[in-house]
Amino acid sequence: MLIYILDMFGTAVFAASGVLLAGRLRMDPFGVVVLASVTAIGGGTIRDMALGATPVFWITDTNYLWVIFVTCFLAMLAVRRPRRMPWYFLPVADAIGLAVFVAIGVEKALRFGASPMVAVIMGVITGCGGGVIRDVLAREIPMVLRTEVYATACILGGIIHTVGLSFDVDPAVATLAGIITTLTIRLAAIRWHLSLPTLALRG
Amino acid sequence: MLIYILDMFGTAVFAASGVLLAGRLRMDPFGVVVLASVTAIGGGTIRDMALGATPVFWITDTNYLWVIFVTCFLAMLAVRRPRRMPWYFLPVADAIGLAVFVAIGVEKALRFGASPMVAVIMGVITGCGGGVIRDVLAREIPMVLRTEVYATACILGGIIHTVGLSFDVDPAVATLAGIITTLTIRLAAIRWHLSLPTLALRG
Amino acid sequence: MLIYILDMFGTAVFAASGVLLAGRLRMDPFGVVVLASVTAIGGGTIRDMALGATPVFWITDTNYLWVIFVTCFLAMLAVRRPRRMPWYFLPVADAIGLAVFVAIGVEKALRFGASPMVAVIMGVITGCGGGVIRDVLAREIPMVLRTEVYATACILGGIIHTVGLSFDVDPAVATLAGIITTLTIRLAAIRWHLSLPTLALRG
Repeated sequence: MLIYILDMFGTAVFAASGVLLAGRLRMDPFGVVVLASVTAIGGGTIRDMALGATPVFWITDTNYLWVIFVTCFLAMLAVRRPRRMPWYFLPVADAIGLAVFVAIGVEKALRFGASPMVAVIMGVITGCGGGVIRDVLAREIPMVLRTEVYATACILGGIIHTVGLSFDVDPAVATLAGIITTLTIRLAAIRWHLSLPTLALRG
Repeated sequence: MLIYILDMFGTAVFAASGVLLAGRLRMDPFGVVVLASVTAIGGGTIRDMALGATPVFWITDTNYLWVIFVTCFLAMLAVRRPRRMPWYFLPVADAIGLAVFVAIGVEKALRFGASPMVAVIMGVITGCGGGVIRDVLAREIPMVLRTEVYATACILGGIIHTVGLSFDVDPAVATLAGIITTLTIRLAAIRWHLSLPTLALRG
Repeated sequence: MLIYILDMFGTAVFAASGVLLAGRLRMDPFGVVVLASVTAIGGGTIRDMALGATPVFWITDTNYLWVIFVTCFLAMLAVRRPRRMPWYFLPVADAIGLAVFVAIGVEKALRFGASPMVAVIMGVITGCGGGVIRDVLAREIPMVLRTEVYATACILGGIIHTVGLSFDVDPAVATLAGIITTLTIRLAAIRWHLSLPTLALRG
């Protein structure tokens, strides 16, 4: 239940990040909703299609769509009278959503019989896939592929989660440990601007 | 039956729009066929994958592929001796195809047990998805996300269609009402260059 | 069995091409793995989603993922001490992988009841789909859509393969004939820089 609430929170935060990018690109209201939607549910959709968990999750539970629509509506209203938010507000909210999405992806994959390694990958896809589609539609090289310890946080969180389960830790505890791992690493990366060294090849 | 013929017509028109873009990008014949195909059947393919309606529609009914191939062949021939077409020819043909695709998407989603809201979304995906993939492959920000009352026409057409069905209107009448709604709004947008106000955020 | 080994070889080669592009774009290690993965298994994933062959192949057989990980690891090591490779090494390896992927796509599609034409298309998607996603993520117009006899080789190889089967040729022979066709045409295109004429439209 708590996970479900956090899931909706993550959906709203991810949708908001889509709205922000759509605004920067001067999209019309429909473009805003599309970019918000693919960011919020794109990763889970790819996961469900690959697992064969169809119809995909937002078809069977339309709460996700309502959360996205309301978020878009509020965000478009909020744009007119911008208020100062502390700079870390959005990244921290995004980190919470990311950590929850990864845990949900891991659990769904395991429920569909995936091996632990595949479950971690599905966690990463659930967390990062939406942002990748958002960036592709906005014609940017996906942020997650370039810098910052973003996907790496997901991978480590997913590993803690699955390793916990394989040691017969209580599922709720394993899930929580995974979420905290992803969140902590991501917050540390935001706070100290951590990034992995990039691979440089001679062009 | 009429719907099926219109569906094939829409497939041909959408394929032609892919051919046109491929020509502008100086693609080779294979690129032409790929861009024509993703434009014509991309939206329906995403819809079927999300619904779990697999194998997707063009695998079980190969008429769609034949229509695309013939369209590409004729379009490549036609390119050599360009004739003057009235400027509104392609947009109007595209609007007809769009309206039919939306109706087909709505119906298929309902047949697979989707709620009316999801059915409208599936209608929009069926109508607009192919153009989005086409534009992504051609490295443009999807036209449908930026301007013109394109997706909005699909949404309103889909709503009329599903609302009609929920009031127990005869299915054929509801379908027709949806198609006419999409088509009328789209034609009006073409005629008077309507577009929704865009959302502007401070970058 | 030989096919399976060649499949793993193709996976490694395709992954390496993703690593190379990621290196040129100065991606971090995670970006490298993602770009390598989508190149190596992206085409087969789309094929399996469209056929309804879920969970997709790399979920049920994780050897593909291990091959990709090891390839990335070795390639990132190799980057530090670049050695001279003959210029044709990568294109030829890529051609072998391509030919095998096409044959595997054709066979899987037929096994799922697809018609010969759809089977050829699934072969092309298996061979070329990963490279298209790779290029989209890297914000390039997909190489395969622009020049060189790349997809054309896949189409002809797939046709030979399915025509062979429809004439009741021994399946192994038909598969081999298809692979050799794709490979020969592709190698000839590399050797003599063959390309199809591009379609030029008045913008």
